[in-house]
Amino acid sequence: PRPVRWYSLPKIWRYEEPQSGRLREHFQFNADVFGVDTPEADAEIINLAGSILTNLGLDTAFSIHINDRVIMDGILKYLGVENTDRVFTIIDRFRKTTRDDFLLLLKENGVSEKSADILLKLVETPFEIGELRSKISEITGKSGILSDRVDRLTKTCDIIRMYGKSNIMMDFSVIRGISYYTGIVFEAFDSLGQFRSILGGGRYDNLASMMSGKEIPAVGFGMGDVVLELLMKREGKWEDNRKEYTYALCFMGDTLQYAMEVAGKIRKNGIICAMELSSRGLSQQIRSAEAQGFRYVLIIGEKEKERGTLTVRDLKESSQSEKTLGDLIMGAKKYGVI
Amino acid sequence: PRPVRWYSLPKIWRYEEPQSGRLREHFQFNADVFGVDTPEADAEIINLAGSILTNLGLDTAFSIHINDRVIMDGILKYLGVENTDRVFTIIDRFRKTTRDDFLLLLKENGVSEKSADILLKLVETPFEIGELRSKISEITGKSGILSDRVDRLTKTCDIIRMYGKSNIMMDFSVIRGISYYTGIVFEAFDSLGQFRSILGGGRYDNLASMMSGKEIPAVGFGMGDVVLELLMKREGKWEDNRKEYTYALCFMGDTLQYAMEVAGKIRKNGIICAMELSSRGLSQQIRSAEAQGFRYVLIIGEKEKERGTLTVRDLKESSQSEKTLGDLIMGAKKYGVI
Repeated sequence: PRPVRWYSLPKIWRYEEPQSGRLREHFQFNADVFGVDTPEADAEIINLAGSILTNLGLDTAFSIHINDRVIMDGILKYLGVENTDRVFTIIDRFRKTTRDDFLLLLKENGVSEKSADILLKLVETPFEIGELRSKISEITGKSGILSDRVDRLTKTCDIIRMYGKSNIMMDFSVIRGISYYTGIVFEAFDSLGQFRSILGGGRYDNLASMMSGKEIPAVGFGMGDVVLELLMKREGKWEDNRKEYTYALCFMGDTLQYAMEVAGKIRKNGIICAMELSSRGLSQQIRSAEAQGFRYVLIIGEKEKERGTLTVRDLKESSQSEKTLGDLIMGAKKYGVI
Repeated sequence: PRPVRWYSLPKIWRYEEPQSGRLREHFQFNADVFGVDTPEADAEIINLAGSILTNLGLDTAFSIHINDRVIMDGILKYLGVENTDRVFTIIDRFRKTTRDDFLLLLKENGVSEKSADILLKLVETPFEIGELRSKISEITGKSGILSDRVDRLTKTCDIIRMYGKSNIMMDFSVIRGISYYTGIVFEAFDSLGQFRSILGGGRYDNLASMMSGKEIPAVGFGMGDVVLELLMKREGKWEDNRKEYTYALCFMGDTLQYAMEVAGKIRKNGIICAMELSSRGLSQQIRSAEAQGFRYVLIIGEKEKERGTLTVRDLKESSQSEKTLGDLIMGAKKYGVI
């Protein structure tokens, strides 16, 4: 039954030179809605994309740039552009080329100098969706042109705003490289413009019919983990310090059984605890725990076993103290380890 | 720095006829410890395997069967078996063949009738690890044979038991098909013997050196999601009913904005809530929600918008009532939806 809401998190490979924000292997989160072709569906997908970034703590660090391929196609027709597919590709690379190269490429592909200048002006600056209607009539000299598409895109943006705070804007430079998109297209960029796009997607109503013969409207997006990681690190939202507060368990002599009971209880409280796995001496055990990056080492000897305690050594502060298991777990909770 | 503890959850493909518990595509959880060759490391890996199954609610539904390839190899030598690799493969298939075929296969591969009979008896019945020493001397007629391997396996099992309740047993039929294992091998089976093994693994100290030239001892296991799903379903631990308690949000007339506010708040409370994505009529919306398998439909019309309420229709009980959002969320929490 439709609509079908669908997500996946596959590992993706691409044959390309690795560069900042782009690796040959990465995870990609995909979300799609199949079976409805409405502004509500477009808005839900874009809202989902925004919510994910917001929930990751990035609410002020990104904005979502929106365009509509049908509107763009209409504008290109008014500008006398014949080789639309080729020009879409050139626009898609606008952010990665200079203005001069952009103009040159357009001219080489049969776009008149005047039209190329207009196109450059169009793609250079994002703007509010409310200005879309006047922008179009400026170019075409007519009002009411592409009116139903403008209405739809405006409605989509209105709905997105209803979901809550949204940093969305109209951006003629967003066109998406892949030619199967048929309507709205969008990308999220970091606010400093430092990285590649964080995610991208759009409506692709013909793809399913190419595959299956059935007409299934669809809208969706894909988000890789590589740019996301760069951005989260820049914004200080990447929690890489969890290991620092985990524990390695060392033991001496005949205390293995007690040590294992302790490890079991610690783990039941959600704290990462690695057991020493050999019978080497204590100092070697501690050196190994340190080399593995653990901050705390729990030492269990005969004394601790008898008293039902643990000696907690803080490798960073070079201090140690004897604690009950309860105190250790309470302390860990207090410092937000768990 | 060693040891390295490592896990992965890749999607795996195999070229084989799909059958119960075995598909061409599945997810496989893998966990390994590299860099230590100790009973502690073996025990930690087996304990991890057991803990995962226990945490999934399967604590009485499985047992872990253990063997040691070195011991098995020693026994085969005492039985005059020359083609050890081939006989390992035959033993590996013991659970899938009849006794007669098993004996026939052994004889075809040069195992004497007497040795084949002994082997059949050995692999037929799992037993307590404590009996291992006497079992071996029964076969070889000598005591103290393979003593260090028996000591190690006994220590491993002792450590596993220290971690807590463990259903482990010795099982000569467990040998693992893949020839790279060098020491302990193990598989987890469901207690009714209904399915293929749930997981399997062992020590493989030579694999890394085959790949890298470096000697890196390793122990690990892999667990597919297909048998696990079958077992969890049989044991009633497969929670497939979450969707029943989620909500579809329908709305009438000019209430979209209020409906979206409601959807946002519901989702913030961790409850799955799907928005209607078209502008069709209410009865169509409800039919569609029902066809998608939702149990509850939230209806928002002008009346609800004015009063700040929701009408909750229970599609299963064919009842409906007007609620505040707070009541809805409290109720959802009460019934364990979130």
